[in-house]
Amino acid sequence: MTGTGRTVGELGEFGLVAAVTARLPQHEGVLLGPGDDAAVLAVGDGRVVATTDLLVEGRHFRRAWSDAMDIGHKAAAQNLSDINAMGAVPTALLVGLGVPPELESGWVEQLADGLREECALVGASVVGGDVTRADVIVLGVTALGDLQGRTPVGRDGAQPGDVVAVAGRLGWASAGLAVLTRGFRSPRAVVEAHRRPRPPYAEGPHAATLGATAMVDLSDGLVGDLGHVARASGVQIDIVSSAFVLEQPLLDVGAALGVEPLGFVLGGGDDYALAACFPAEVELPEPWLAIGRVTEASGEPQVLVDGAPYEGVGGHEHFR
Amino acid sequence: MTGTGRTVGELGEFGLVAAVTARLPQHEGVLLGPGDDAAVLAVGDGRVVATTDLLVEGRHFRRAWSDAMDIGHKAAAQNLSDINAMGAVPTALLVGLGVPPELESGWVEQLADGLREECALVGASVVGGDVTRADVIVLGVTALGDLQGRTPVGRDGAQPGDVVAVAGRLGWASAGLAVLTRGFRSPRAVVEAHRRPRPPYAEGPHAATLGATAMVDLSDGLVGDLGHVARASGVQIDIVSSAFVLEQPLLDVGAALGVEPLGFVLGGGDDYALAACFPAEVELPEPWLAIGRVTEASGEPQVLVDGAPYEGVGGHEHFR
Repeated sequence: MTGTGRTVGELGEFGLVAAVTARLPQHEGVLLGPGDDAAVLAVGDGRVVATTDLLVEGRHFRRAWSDAMDIGHKAAAQNLSDINAMGAVPTALLVGLGVPPELESGWVEQLADGLREECALVGASVVGGDVTRADVIVLGVTALGDLQGRTPVGRDGAQPGDVVAVAGRLGWASAGLAVLTRGFRSPRAVVEAHRRPRPPYAEGPHAATLGATAMVDLSDGLVGDLGHVARASGVQIDIVSSAFVLEQPLLDVGAALGVEPLGFVLGGGDDYALAACFPAEVELPEPWLAIGRVTEASGEPQVLVDGAPYEGVGGHEHFR
Repeated sequence: MTGTGRTVGELGEFGLVAAVTARLPQHEGVLLGPGDDAAVLAVGDGRVVATTDLLVEGRHFRRAWSDAMDIGHKAAAQNLSDINAMGAVPTALLVGLGVPPELESGWVEQLADGLREECALVGASVVGGDVTRADVIVLGVTALGDLQGRTPVGRDGAQPGDVVAVAGRLGWASAGLAVLTRGFRSPRAVVEAHRRPRPPYAEGPHAATLGATAMVDLSDGLVGDLGHVARASGVQIDIVSSAFVLEQPLLDVGAALGVEPLGFVLGGGDDYALAACFPAEVELPEPWLAIGRVTEASGEPQVLVDGAPYEGVGGHEHFR
């Protein structure tokens, strides 16, 4: 820890803001960074892409399972990923932070380090925020992005005949969560994947350039998130499960926990991989992996796996 | 209530999102509204202004004192006000919402109505959001704005010789909070001011056009917020208390509670009025009221009231 050993309450709101702000360099394009009523960003494209998420301790993360830097990385990643899924490049993050006064201020500094380092992967900056008191740690994260002239890729453009493909890891984070939930800390690769997802940041803009008709990031799980695409586009999506190569860590977790490892791939969220639909004539480059087809919806738009509705976990529902 | 009588948990995440989204019309300039990974907004100016706040039930609002629509209005107002204080016009709001599953879904719909109606005052739209489960209601609100070619007005440009002026009501919201805290519900005017602040939305851009050198919105209180301007600009700010006209409701609350009503004006927050510094040659139009001067800092930058440090409440500290 790099902190002062003081609690947030001892440091005070303004001391905490100063300590955090000092750790957040501002990149080119930030015309006015933290410290005023609002930040000002250059927007070359004439459009800005914006998304927000609210993360609550105990529900979206646990301090026992992830350190502050991990939590910062992941909170940034899941919002940067939403920008990625539009075909845009993230430019800025704003973070509203609620913390208990007895929290060590070093924890908040490490959180800021994690946010900063994840942002640095895409050239974005943490340009603003807010701190306040809360009984559990709460993070309200907003990401902004730049389409750089590209057409935004929504969820509603999938066409029958399109190929469905994914980029990035699938199932690793949920396999990690499964082992942590059972009190284990290994395989390390999946636990690390739960703590720090690795969204394929280059692939959102890449897919847009390739002509993707629809795209979504996988926060809730492949079948669940493709369900949003199917409903928004009014199509059926047919996934072929043999398209997936099940990596060793997933096989290991499946064997150890007595569960089908394909379930992590099809139903597990939080890897922030991308799923996109492409016209059949598009030649898909690495790392895109074709996993199925878009077809006409016969009845309700839906996602089928090997020709049948998927019976596993079909996406996360926050109020269940 | 316009709700279904169902709880948020019964309606479910996707049902709740659909019910809320249906209440949020999108204005011109919103290229892609709610329902995708991110929203897309037109930005004519080449720059975007962005600010975020986190609001926690019990700390920033109470359901016993404000209804859902009031809370929506106020949550929007305090963020739109930050955009206003830069000299920009708000264009969009994004709202991350954490709610307990047992909350009536109609409450959330009324919250959305309040957000929408406050945004409509300035022509902004609620373009995106997120809902999740939380033990107490939490709102992560982000506002975006357009400078329309104006120079952003920060906190660091105040110059010795400038006139300090305010626009909007001062002290009304904190007088309202004071009576509510003591179990009263009147005077109605101040209670309403606490529930629904009325930021002077036209005056931020107006002040920028008039040549304001520094501007801040009054969320924490006049002396506290001008303290940020004094420190950022390296100046002293001298307020003359006789410049203020104490309106009858403030006099009534002062008399009823046995406190000095000027304390609400100097130390009370949450009215989201504006304070700005202007070169002396600027002729200040209505509703701007000159209340003091910027002078050279002799020693630490500070705010003096009638020549002395202000001994009352000097701004809100979230961890006190």
